Amino acid sequence: MAITSIGDFTTIAGATVTGAEISYRRHGEFRGNAYDNNVILVEHALTGDTDVTEWWPGLIGPGLALDTDRFCVICTNALGGCGGSTGPSSVHPDGRAWGSRFPALSIRDLVEAERRLLEQLGIYHVHAVIGGSMGGARALEWTLMYPTFVDAACIIAVSARASGWQIGIQTAQISAITRDPDWHGGDYYDICDGPREGLSAARRIAHLTYRGEMEIDERFGTIAQQGENPLGAFRRPDQRFAVNSYLDYQGRKLVERFDAGSYVTLTEALNRHDVGRGRSGLNKALYSSTVPTMLVGVDTDILYPFHQQEHLSRNIGQLMGLRKLVSPVGHDAFLTETRQMDRILRMFINKANDGAEPTDGFGHDPEGVWNI
Amino acid sequence: MAITSIGDFTTIAGATVTGAEISYRRHGEFRGNAYDNNVILVEHALTGDTDVTEWWPGLIGPGLALDTDRFCVICTNALGGCGGSTGPSSVHPDGRAWGSRFPALSIRDLVEAERRLLEQLGIYHVHAVIGGSMGGARALEWTLMYPTFVDAACIIAVSARASGWQIGIQTAQISAITRDPDWHGGDYYDICDGPREGLSAARRIAHLTYRGEMEIDERFGTIAQQGENPLGAFRRPDQRFAVNSYLDYQGRKLVERFDAGSYVTLTEALNRHDVGRGRSGLNKALYSSTVPTMLVGVDTDILYPFHQQEHLSRNIGQLMGLRKLVSPVGHDAFLTETRQMDRILRMFINKANDGAEPTDGFGHDPEGVWNI
Repeated sequence: MAITSIGDFTTIAGATVTGAEISYRRHGEFRGNAYDNNVILVEHALTGDTDVTEWWPGLIGPGLALDTDRFCVICTNALGGCGGSTGPSSVHPDGRAWGSRFPALSIRDLVEAERRLLEQLGIYHVHAVIGGSMGGARALEWTLMYPTFVDAACIIAVSARASGWQIGIQTAQISAITRDPDWHGGDYYDICDGPREGLSAARRIAHLTYRGEMEIDERFGTIAQQGENPLGAFRRPDQRFAVNSYLDYQGRKLVERFDAGSYVTLTEALNRHDVGRGRSGLNKALYSSTVPTMLVGVDTDILYPFHQQEHLSRNIGQLMGLRKLVSPVGHDAFLTETRQMDRILRMFINKANDGAEPTDGFGHDPEGVWNI
Repeated sequence: MAITSIGDFTTIAGATVTGAEISYRRHGEFRGNAYDNNVILVEHALTGDTDVTEWWPGLIGPGLALDTDRFCVICTNALGGCGGSTGPSSVHPDGRAWGSRFPALSIRDLVEAERRLLEQLGIYHVHAVIGGSMGGARALEWTLMYPTFVDAACIIAVSARASGWQIGIQTAQISAITRDPDWHGGDYYDICDGPREGLSAARRIAHLTYRGEMEIDERFGTIAQQGENPLGAFRRPDQRFAVNSYLDYQGRKLVERFDAGSYVTLTEALNRHDVGRGRSGLNKALYSSTVPTMLVGVDTDILYPFHQQEHLSRNIGQLMGLRKLVSPVGHDAFLTETRQMDRILRMFINKANDGAEPTDGFGHDPEGVWNI
């Protein structure tokens, strides 16, 4: 993983992160030049990071769908995150954590910060951008903010804007964190370990929107956690149904690897997701898109129901296709249904290449290797 | 509203509520006798109460679907509630609130307590039982625990058992309450106003499962609450999207009318809902049912998806029919889609009467009026 400074970064809403840095990771050799190359940007979801082969296994590597023998896959950590990029837990120029001084971000801010990073790397155009969930929101904004920057986009399990329901359930997660006494208004970094209970509670709620309800039921139903009795004479939090043990585990796991401040910041960015804002409305914005775009959804997605991808497909300017993952898993299927995603990504790569004449960017000029 | 003592009540799990009381309300004259009468039990949902014409308007009254010129509609408050029946906020024999000493309840406990009340009133049989959501769970248990007690049942927007997803999201609500510092382990009654923030947070989560996601989006989308700016440079809880203002309002409203201890107790009862438990499994239990049962679901229900009512309909012993409410409203449609519910309840009443020979219970003997 590398970290590059993008200088002072001012958000659309007008706050500045001084000395912002963006971390990234690269798989495969860069070929081409600043304006014509083999770069594929992969955008991570809410709690993802630059380690794309870790969170999206089986899809990125030599011979895989995103073939690193052909492509240079770059994955950046979102501004506001905690995987190397500047976020609330990062050190402010005054030596203390940013904490509550870290501004609210929009999805567009995340894209803008990423563009600044690529500019620093000497990249002014990429072949494709791919992302799911929050990564899909970023990929979609890429096509609208910088349509000439990308040849094609694959946008997975996301919508054109946050829905009322999403804002509601996401704000419930933010509230679970901020009501934790260890949140300290977001300035817990010098005081304690942070709002671990709150972050865990937020993740438990989130996880129920990431998975299919029938899948969770099939796995757990009303079964008791082994060695525990959730049917006792009095309710006891340590006597659980198996599903609650599973959700507790998901919460604990996140607490170990993710910062609560980043969780709040990026969840808020999702609340603000709306490609129509300042662009004369949603459908007009989508219609204006000139980037060939593949849309993907999941039939059992609770968080971003498939009708939202249908809506995108009806309105986006240059539709390459709409594909549906069929899976009991729900939203997370784009991370877990590797075989289906493999097919879809290969189709996307083929279609994206069909449109373009062969150029240096696709390995025809092995000399054109940049060292990024 | 009347309140009747049912004596010491011991739960299935073995805890005792000494001197338990159950409140109830009656609409329409009782006709018939202890074993043959015109009583229709209406079972309220989680935060409902005995005031059935208030929370289910347009359906109960003279000439309405549940015609109080013909029927005697009785609505009891669930044990554990806070609408007159004994619950955590009630006074323990020692003069202080029950609080954490109030036991965990199952749906079967709620039914048993209600049966004890009816027994006190001299009623050993009713014509029909009707309920939605938690009320549906109770109605379903009525048909399995006391099949000869009811002629017919109408079970709305519920499942044969809690699903893993339901237990997860319901426990998230319990946790929102119990993590509130004002919860005090359930013994807040003498100390403070109780976990108002936590209860409000629980309700906000719950409300998102009570309504259809497309309905909420259609109403609120990404619109800002009037006079507030949710897109400012920093996240501020007092600068909200309209949907969050709406959810805050739902939370506040509940806090004013409902006790957090009762919310936890009855939510936990829903977690324990499982008609298969101790009855050789779910489908065997359903198949054993001898009570003619009408099933009703909502096409957009997130909390109790329609496939759960389909499951019930495939397995229940005596199926009168399966009806689907078509509504954007989601789970709450059984409370709000009065016209559709009117038709369904009239059909149910007709079918329930078809099976039975005319008896004193249906107004043929106006002398047979009991004063309950």
